[in-house]
Amino acid sequence: MNSSPTAAVPFVNDLFLRAFTDERLPCPPVWLMRQAGRYLPEYRATRGKAGSFLELCRSPAFCAEVLLQPLERFDLDAAILFSDILTVPDAMGLGLSFGVGEGPRFAHPLRDEAAVNALTVPDMRSLQYVFDAVAECKRALKSKVPLIGFSGSPFTLACYMIEGGGSSDGFPLTRRMMLQRPELFQHVLDVNVTAVTAYLSEQVRSGADVLMLFDTWGGVLSPRLYREYSLKPMRRIVTSLNKSFPQTPVMLFSRGAAHSFDAMALTGAHGLGVDWQSDLADARKAAGPAVTLQGNFDPLLLTTDAATIRREVGKALVDFDPHYRYVANLGHGITPDADPALVDLLVHTLRAL
Amino acid sequence: MNSSPTAAVPFVNDLFLRAFTDERLPCPPVWLMRQAGRYLPEYRATRGKAGSFLELCRSPAFCAEVLLQPLERFDLDAAILFSDILTVPDAMGLGLSFGVGEGPRFAHPLRDEAAVNALTVPDMRSLQYVFDAVAECKRALKSKVPLIGFSGSPFTLACYMIEGGGSSDGFPLTRRMMLQRPELFQHVLDVNVTAVTAYLSEQVRSGADVLMLFDTWGGVLSPRLYREYSLKPMRRIVTSLNKSFPQTPVMLFSRGAAHSFDAMALTGAHGLGVDWQSDLADARKAAGPAVTLQGNFDPLLLTTDAATIRREVGKALVDFDPHYRYVANLGHGITPDADPALVDLLVHTLRAL
Repeated sequence: MNSSPTAAVPFVNDLFLRAFTDERLPCPPVWLMRQAGRYLPEYRATRGKAGSFLELCRSPAFCAEVLLQPLERFDLDAAILFSDILTVPDAMGLGLSFGVGEGPRFAHPLRDEAAVNALTVPDMRSLQYVFDAVAECKRALKSKVPLIGFSGSPFTLACYMIEGGGSSDGFPLTRRMMLQRPELFQHVLDVNVTAVTAYLSEQVRSGADVLMLFDTWGGVLSPRLYREYSLKPMRRIVTSLNKSFPQTPVMLFSRGAAHSFDAMALTGAHGLGVDWQSDLADARKAAGPAVTLQGNFDPLLLTTDAATIRREVGKALVDFDPHYRYVANLGHGITPDADPALVDLLVHTLRAL
Repeated sequence: MNSSPTAAVPFVNDLFLRAFTDERLPCPPVWLMRQAGRYLPEYRATRGKAGSFLELCRSPAFCAEVLLQPLERFDLDAAILFSDILTVPDAMGLGLSFGVGEGPRFAHPLRDEAAVNALTVPDMRSLQYVFDAVAECKRALKSKVPLIGFSGSPFTLACYMIEGGGSSDGFPLTRRMMLQRPELFQHVLDVNVTAVTAYLSEQVRSGADVLMLFDTWGGVLSPRLYREYSLKPMRRIVTSLNKSFPQTPVMLFSRGAAHSFDAMALTGAHGLGVDWQSDLADARKAAGPAVTLQGNFDPLLLTTDAATIRREVGKALVDFDPHYRYVANLGHGITPDADPALVDLLVHTLRAL
């Protein structure tokens, strides 16, 4: 199932892509989830110029600017498109906004049967600003390192679309629809599968070298429900993408779903993200040798000290081979209070493995 | 490791205690976490009389009153002491309070080395109000069903003691102390182990028939760190209690730690709580046949409808034997929006298995 795609375009640094092959690498490639972010003063400056987070996402020039910032500071092996996971439901007309210091909010959440039935796959032209950003980022990178495109997973999108925003108690409105009206919930997932497949396909056509599905909330489900409502829709997307773009590795990242690494490895995905609440050695044991694992350092480490980071990196890699099908990364997005000097230290520590 | 304690005192209904033996039961015993709670109008009336949640906890008479309320409404097989998991750190002088509509807060959290070094095991006389409540509840029950005593786990108590309250992002102050100053963190755990052991022992002497350790936050840790900082301290408590009170079953409930049911089963605990984000069949497979499992219906079900509840109960018990070493329960505390009519339906559905 897990073929080994190789890039058609040569890169100055192709270490990241080689982690999706059988090659043993001298050291693991490194990138950091949300590596362009508020912990960097230069990012805060660009965001100030852009006005807001969404305006930043909607400007290809600003996207390329913040994409390059962490690469200039740190010795990283991949760049990730600067965007949001909720662009697709926004294009469906749900009305995305971000309050100051708050999470995402939809003006028109899917609260009843009529709203669900009215939901359709958006015209991809309404997401042209994202594809333009991909193309601009790709140009700006000058083939230095590969570019990762991404989307939220169908289940995670459904959580925000139904709940209308984030949730501190497991998305009760979403899960109630899932339990009481499974056919309505399935319709939302089906629309999301088609939309996300088209969205990621267009990102590849615009220049993305690797794709990632962020399933931030799959872990709120039990293993049985996760496999049905989160993993199965992702598998449909992976199957389509593998057919259309056999050279493009696809990664899944389900937070809090360590129970199902075995099932994830059977989807045809080339890589699996591992969150910081899992152990890499356990993930490898469950997923088997044929899939690339990515993770899973605790973002909190970047708010501690050098000795703690060196010690914890050592402990995390006990019984785990970091030279084979492994991409070093955090186990969740970098936090605004991360110390850039410690980010540099973490990258160097991993480089020296 | 998992001996089969039997009650010295006969009960009108001993189904719950028999779930800790090898006996196959006609139907599983049922109780519900937080069964005395805000979803019941009679509870809200008593709480109104008491003034506040903490004043309710501090009045043995009111504790007994709310303890009996769900037993009068529903066909339940156990009662649980009405109290809070944070009584022990409050007795250590940390100053527990609850804001209106908010979670717990400590006035004097453990924020530096001096505070940690000053921490000591509290005099159990300062917790006499809890032991009086146990005795009063026991009297009020008139041996109808067994009484469960409980405490927060050492790790979970440490989370609140260091953070100063709840956390929506994984208790960063707590985990930072754990990573940077493991010796300080271990001191907090050591004090908690001694205090919780004394606290639960005194609950048994006051009338508790079964004990439960609530490890609400063990799941924020990776499996490796969970076993070191959450499970190991609980194991020390179980070992002590099993020596002092071989007739008293002890249960562990770690939320979000399905990765370690195998290790939990080796602690000597007689029962393990299963959260709603796990599958019972997986838990049984990991824990083995010698330990009682308790759980794990989604509290959200009690806000849906009868057909959904019947369907989900059926699905949850596929590949799981509900007649052997099993206690039916929710996988987390009942929520204030639960419908009492659906609680009754759930209990009857389980009774009819």
